[in-house]
Parts: sequence; C-alpha cells; structure tokens
Amino acid sequence: MAQRVRDVQRWFTEFGRYAYTEVAPIPLDGLSGWHRDRDTGDIRHDSGKFFSVEGLAAQVPLGPVPEWTQPIINQPEIGVLGLLVKENDGVLRALVQAKVEPGNRNGLQLSPTVQATRSNYTRVHQGRAVPYLEYFRDHRAHHVITDVRQSEQGAWFYRKRNRSMVVETTREVELRKGFTWLTLGELYAMLAEEDRVNMDLRSVLSCLPLSASGVDTVLRSDGTGFRGSLVRSCRPSAGARHSLGELLNWLTDTRAGTDVLTDRIALDGLRGWRRTPETITHESGQFFSVIGVDVTAGGREVAHWNQPMIRPRGQGVIALLVARIDGVLHALMHARVEPGYLDVAELAPTVQCIPDSVDVLPAAARPPFLDTVLSADPSQLRYDTVLSEEGGRFYHALSRYVIVETAAEGIEHPEFRWIAVHQLMELLRHSHYLNVQARSMVACLHSLLAVPATAAPAVPSMPTGPSTAGVEGS
Amino acid sequence: MAQRVRDVQRWFTEFGRYAYTEVAPIPLDGLSGWHRDRDTGDIRHDSGKFFSVEGLAAQVPLGPVPEWTQPIINQPEIGVLGLLVKENDGVLRALVQAKVEPGNRNGLQLSPTVQATRSNYTRVHQGRAVPYLEYFRDHRAHHVITDVRQSEQGAWFYRKRNRSMVVETTREVELRKGFTWLTLGELYAMLAEEDRVNMDLRSVLSCLPLSASGVDTVLRSDGTGFRGSLVRSCRPSAGARHSLGELLNWLTDTRAGTDVLTDRIALDGLRGWRRTPETITHESGQFFSVIGVDVTAGGREVAHWNQPMIRPRGQGVIALLVARIDGVLHALMHARVEPGYLDVAELAPTVQCIPDSVDVLPAAARPPFLDTVLSADPSQLRYDTVLSEEGGRFYHALSRYVIVETAAEGIEHPEFRWIAVHQLMELLRHSHYLNVQARSMVACLHSLLAVPATAAPAVPSMPTGPSTAGVEGS
Repeated sequence: MAQRVRDVQRWFTEFGRYAYTEVAPIPLDGLSGWHRDRDTGDIRHDSGKFFSVEGLAAQVPLGPVPEWTQPIINQPEIGVLGLLVKENDGVLRALVQAKVEPGNRNGLQLSPTVQATRSNYTRVHQGRAVPYLEYFRDHRAHHVITDVRQSEQGAWFYRKRNRSMVVETTREVELRKGFTWLTLGELYAMLAEEDRVNMDLRSVLSCLPLSASGVDTVLRSDGTGFRGSLVRSCRPSAGARHSLGELLNWLTDTRAGTDVLTDRIALDGLRGWRRTPETITHESGQFFSVIGVDVTAGGREVAHWNQPMIRPRGQGVIALLVARIDGVLHALMHARVEPGYLDVAELAPTVQCIPDSVDVLPAAARPPFLDTVLSADPSQLRYDTVLSEEGGRFYHALSRYVIVETAAEGIEHPEFRWIAVHQLMELLRHSHYLNVQARSMVACLHSLLAVPATAAPAVPSMPTGPSTAGVEGS
Repeated sequence: MAQRVRDVQRWFTEFGRYAYTEVAPIPLDGLSGWHRDRDTGDIRHDSGKFFSVEGLAAQVPLGPVPEWTQPIINQPEIGVLGLLVKENDGVLRALVQAKVEPGNRNGLQLSPTVQATRSNYTRVHQGRAVPYLEYFRDHRAHHVITDVRQSEQGAWFYRKRNRSMVVETTREVELRKGFTWLTLGELYAMLAEEDRVNMDLRSVLSCLPLSASGVDTVLRSDGTGFRGSLVRSCRPSAGARHSLGELLNWLTDTRAGTDVLTDRIALDGLRGWRRTPETITHESGQFFSVIGVDVTAGGREVAHWNQPMIRPRGQGVIALLVARIDGVLHALMHARVEPGYLDVAELAPTVQCIPDSVDVLPAAARPPFLDTVLSADPSQLRYDTVLSEEGGRFYHALSRYVIVETAAEGIEHPEFRWIAVHQLMELLRHSHYLNVQARSMVACLHSLLAVPATAAPAVPSMPTGPSTAGVEGS
C-alpha cells in the first residue's frame, strides 16, 4: 500500500499543476457580485442565493458567557456530500476527488465524489454540471448505504446542514480527470497526512458503517493493545459503560434543560465587533474575522469569483480523550452547546477550542480537559494531525486533531460521557447527534484500525474479501 | 381483569363528581388575562407565558395546495409528559391521573402521571405544585426507561414539542387523590373505550419499549392469526419488508426533497380567514376555528380561567392500514408534511384528515387510501374507537382511530412504506420520526396484544412475571 500512497501523492502533485486557486484578500465592501444590505448591513449575493453573512444574538443564561453577538453565515439550503463506492474482488473502493477550495492553505484536498450545494445542482452560477451528481440525485438504481442529514459548525453557521450519502453502484463508472478510486485502507493512510482529507470527506466517511460489505473484514481480528480495544469498540456486540438509553436520556436532559435563545439580528447591530470597509473583527482581536477574497481558479467549474469568508484567529485544538474500559475503547464525548445548532446541543469531541481565544473568556469558560490534552505525554498520542475545516467558507481554518489515550478512572463530569465507538456509529445513522468535529474524529478513529502504511509491508486487517490478492497496491 | 376495569370506571365516575370543568364559549376579544397585540392582532397571555395564537404563511410548492395562511399556536416551551411506573411481584404498573381538560367532551380522561408545561413547574400561574413532578425533574435516583422529545400536531402547533419520559421507581409512592395504578393490560383495555385515554398518555405509552422488565412476557407467545402476526412484528428480530436503512433513506429523501417554507405572520394578516370579535373562522367554514372559552374547574390547580382554543370542524379520521407480510404485521406509514414540524415531514398513519374539510380542497389533495378506509368491511377492522387530541388546547377535537387489516399486494405509493412495529419502536427512541397521531396508533396497536377484557376470564399474555398470581384483579 505504501507504493499506492506514493502514487496518489504523485497524482496529487501533478493534478495540482492543472487545478489551482489564487486567493487574494480584498475589502468586504469591494466584493464583486455581493452587496451590503441597505437596512441591516448583511452581506448578500446579488442573486439572493448561496449564503449571506448576518448577525446573531445568542443567550445561554446558564453558560459561562451568558450572552453575546457575532457574525454568522446563513446558508439555508441543504447540500449533498456524496461518496460513490464500488466493490471489486471483495474490496470496496471510494471515488474521491482532488478539489481546490479557496480556504485551503495547500490548495488541493481529497473531497467526496460530489460536494454540491443546492445552488450547484440547480446551477445558479451558470457553471458546468457537477460530475457524478446523477448517482445521488437518482439513486434508486443503486444501493444507498448511508443517507443522513448532519449539522456543520454551529459556531459559524446558522443551522446549516448537509446531506451525507454513501451510494454503492455495480455499474461501470467513467473515471474523470481529478478523480481516483481509493480503498478504505488508502483513505485511512491519507488521513494521517496533514491537511490532505477535507472536512466533507471526513464527515461522510464517518457515516459509512463498518458492517458494509467489503469493509467488515476489518473487525474480524482484534488482539491485544490499543488497536484490539478499538476493534472491539467498533463491534455492535461490545459492552459499554452506558447503555444507549442512558446516553439518550443524558442528551435529552441537556437539550431540554439548557436555554439557548438565538435571534438573527442586523450585521450592523453587533456589539463588541468592529466593522471597516475591509473586514469585521472582534474588538479583542480573537475568535474570528469576516474577510473578503478574490479567487481565480483553474480546473474548477468557475474561473473567477469574489466571496466573503470566515477567518478564525489562530489554530484550533480538537481533542478526544479515549480510554480502555473492560478492554473496549471509549471516547469521552462532550454534550456541547453551539448557537447555530438546530437542537441546542450535539456530541462533540472532548475539547474543541482556539486556545488563544480561550484566554480572553472568563475563567469558567476554559474548556474542561484542555490542560489534560495540552500536557499529554507524546506516548499517549494515538493520532495527531493538522486538519482543516471546510475550505469553501472558512479561510485557513486549521485545527490540530489529537486523540489522547488516558485512564478512565477519576474522569467524571456532568457534561461528558464515555461512549463506545459502535454507539457513536449507531447515533450516526440519525441526524444531529454528532457534530462535524466529532464526525471527523470518528473517521480518524477508524483510520487507526489500519496499521500505518510505513510500519508494515502488508495491511493485516484491511478489507480483503475472499482472497488477500484483492488489496490493490498493497 | 374485567372486574378491575369496572372498578376503575366506578372510580372515574366518583372522581368526576369532585373534578369537573364547566366550559362556556366567550368572545375572543373578551378573554380575561389575554390581549390582542396592537401591531399584529396576535392573541397573547398578559404574562407573556403559556402560548399565543399567531399567523403562519406556508408554502409547499410541489404540494397539492402550494400555499396558504392559517392561525397557529406558538408554544415554544418544552413540557414534560411523565409516566411513573413501578414493578411489584413481576408486574409493571403505571401511575395514571384522572384529569379534566377544558377541551374534553367528557370531562375526565386518563392522563400521564405528570403533564406539565414549563410554565407549570416554574409556576407562572401561581397554582399548586404539580404532584409527582420531582420524579421527572430529579430523575437520577430512578431508572429512566424512556426520555425523548416528540412533536405535537404540526397542523395546529408551530414546532411544539413535548418531552416524553417513562421513569421507574423502586420507592414507596404515596397515592394522591385522582391517581391510580394500572397494569399495562388494564391500560390497554381502557384504550378500547371511547375517549378515555388522553392523547398525552397514548403518546408516552407508545414510547415504552415492550422489552422493559415486567412487560416483555407479552411477546413470549405468538401463535397464529392477526395477534400472532402482531406479536412477531413487535419482536426486534422479526423480518421486515424494508431495512431500517432503506426507511431512513426514504425519509431523508422526502425531507431533503420537499420545500416547506413557513413564515410567522401577523394573525391579522391571514388571507381566506374571517376574524370577528368572537372567533376566527375559515371562509369555507371548514378546517378549524379559533374560539374563546371561559373555564371553571374543580379538582384542578386553578379554579377559573379564560383561554383561546382551536376547535376543529367535524370529526377526523385517523386510519392505519395493516397487512401481514411473511407472517409479520406491517403498518402502512405516510411520510407526511405539516407546516409546524421542526423537520419537514414525519411518519404519520396511513390516513389523517377531517373528511368534511377534504371536500373543499383540490381533488389532488384527497388523501390516498381514504376511500379504502371508508369502504372497509367491518370484518377488516381491528380497532375502531373515537379518541380526542389534547384537551388543553383543542376543543372537542375528536377523531375516529381505526386500524384496518388488508392485503399488502398492489399497495405501492412513493409517499408510503410498509413498516414493522419493531421498526416503529426503534424509531421512537429518537425524536421527530413519528408524529403524535402515529404514536397514538402505536399505543392502539400495542393494546391489541391484549385479549379484550370481556372476551376471556384471564389475560393470557399480559405481563405476569414469575407467577400468574401477579396480575392484579384479573
């Protein structure tokens, strides 16, 4: 597989000469195709489509910050994140795209087969048709493995949702430029690389059940050590610290007991934010800014456009504490409240913050377990890679995703629960239980089922189907 | 059990002398404690609490009625419907309340242990404390069997939700006036009586898993015939026409593919509705009216009050087609769009309408299968009882709930799917899959697991635990 990973890297580099973006910051007030609403100051596209930047007033009376206002992206349309998969010789492969987005620090990233807003497929922007969209629009001829709507960043989006679909086909699929078929083992190896697998692909991958045909062999052998506890944790039959009913009770309790009041307000009505013709920034210099960018793209459906983007201040830390409980790996999940969620709270990784911004908040707002994560010994780190959030709306939104193994003893907190991986997978069948960062973490956890490509000549537990000869390039 | 049912009826009659309501229609503009908003005409409580009657503009561009306006109740608080249960000698009993509500045609109905709006327990109306609420507010000392938020009538409520909780205690519980303990068998027998079990109790009963201790014996024997197919359908291991994944895909497809745009508008801004100082009615005389009532109540926490209510025009028909597929009973569920749902569509019974009002709609809006139901042979009826919707907001909202057995062959419709009962139960663990009428239907289906109290001296498959002596009063 190591060879195959190098091949993909080479393909990436070559394709990067064809597909590129040049992104230059420009003033918000000079965005071509966008205007400032006369009454509210909201930033809207002239077509009325795509998205707008508006104001939000949030109240969480019992939270450490009881009220605040902020800019927020309003994008009411539900887009499709579609991953096309196909089984050959007992091996499942996914069709992924090398895609440029203006917010990507490194240009190209691996994305799902289809990453389409509704505007995309109703073709508001007069661009070319979205390749392979037909498999997801007219999916009755294929096998739909996963189809679920999930939230995106509730701190930056107002109730945005995407539809994550995994569709299996048995037809011959024409391979277009910029696309390639990867096994799950290869995808998992890519997940270990910095900023290579984009957020949408991580999200849709997390929703792919490991029980799918051509994938399930990964769970056949467990063994000892960390990986064994992870394999067992992925099996639906494994024991868990709490029953699913107890977890649902806990989450319902949080959702019913937490008042979150949000009001969409005028972007010009924010308190504590400074708006200039160039940008919107918080007075503390922290959290995030709204900036304008001018984008020139090759190898993409539109060659030149302007748009506003969210630019976070500093690199985030997104961390998951994991522990073996009776030989089964559990993740410490946080019932996290964000103002943009449709339903108060969702399960998030243990820690999710921008450390620099934490320092300007009241002490009570310091995330529990942040110091545990920041002071973890390198020997505790099971995953540690910088990944970025969606590059279509967020500019260089980088976070260090880290999985830290610890002992469960003594870790008790009313806002947190130890949850087995198969329980997370069961919840992922339904909408709005796991936030987008938690979905990324599930994909990262799954990637640890594989042995690193550089560590072993063969991948012992990747999907191999009836004969081991099926693993392409391994 | 027949004797016990007669005892409960006698208790009801006697309690009814103590607990009563006198309800008189009065003009909307004369409601004491309520006012008409100066700008919008919305009807609001002077405290700002409880609920308001506002206007809603709905657009469903691809529906048979692409747009309309209507009055709607806005009650953003999430109340608690709590059922306290306790196992004694292997038999689970539920603590139910004989409760009067102003909209009840017959005064008293059986309701859950606790039926509290958030105003109730923050005690906005200065009434007495809600009995037994402590079991649901501070439930950590007890076993929470079910805890899920569910929608209410999406045609009349704007995104109203309730929290359905079943809590099991092992403590001694003081029995207060107006409450009694009933076995599930007794509750099921009550469900066969007209207008006896109120909507909230039906809803919370539907969410009680049949796998709960003291209940599970009901599924041990199946046998032949209708009841055998129902027992098998309740078992999670039973086969089903569609996998859960296929059903979720179908529902996601409906939810993602249906545009429902709702705008809350001024109550004075409705088109097609006539507002007088007395009432608000539709120009056709159909659908429903908003009326005012003056209520005098005994045996309830407040002795006298006024309030607006929704009064539907005519009796509704809520029908479920069921069929045996490979020996397993399946219900034909409708992915129904209502403007007040949080999420576009929920699973509804096969038919849900007010037949008189259907006649003023376009022909395309005639509910599929309504004629099948209305022309069913009496030998096909498995359940046929008039029940009412919530009596706190709806005045004499009666519907004929009917379960009709048919053959599955030839019944195919894109908006409908045949679903096994255990699949409905699995979906009921999560929020917003089954609408309130469908939840009532699940309770009615469960009641058919019992043999009617008059038909047999003993109840063969009610929960009896280790010894049959445990069935109280049978």
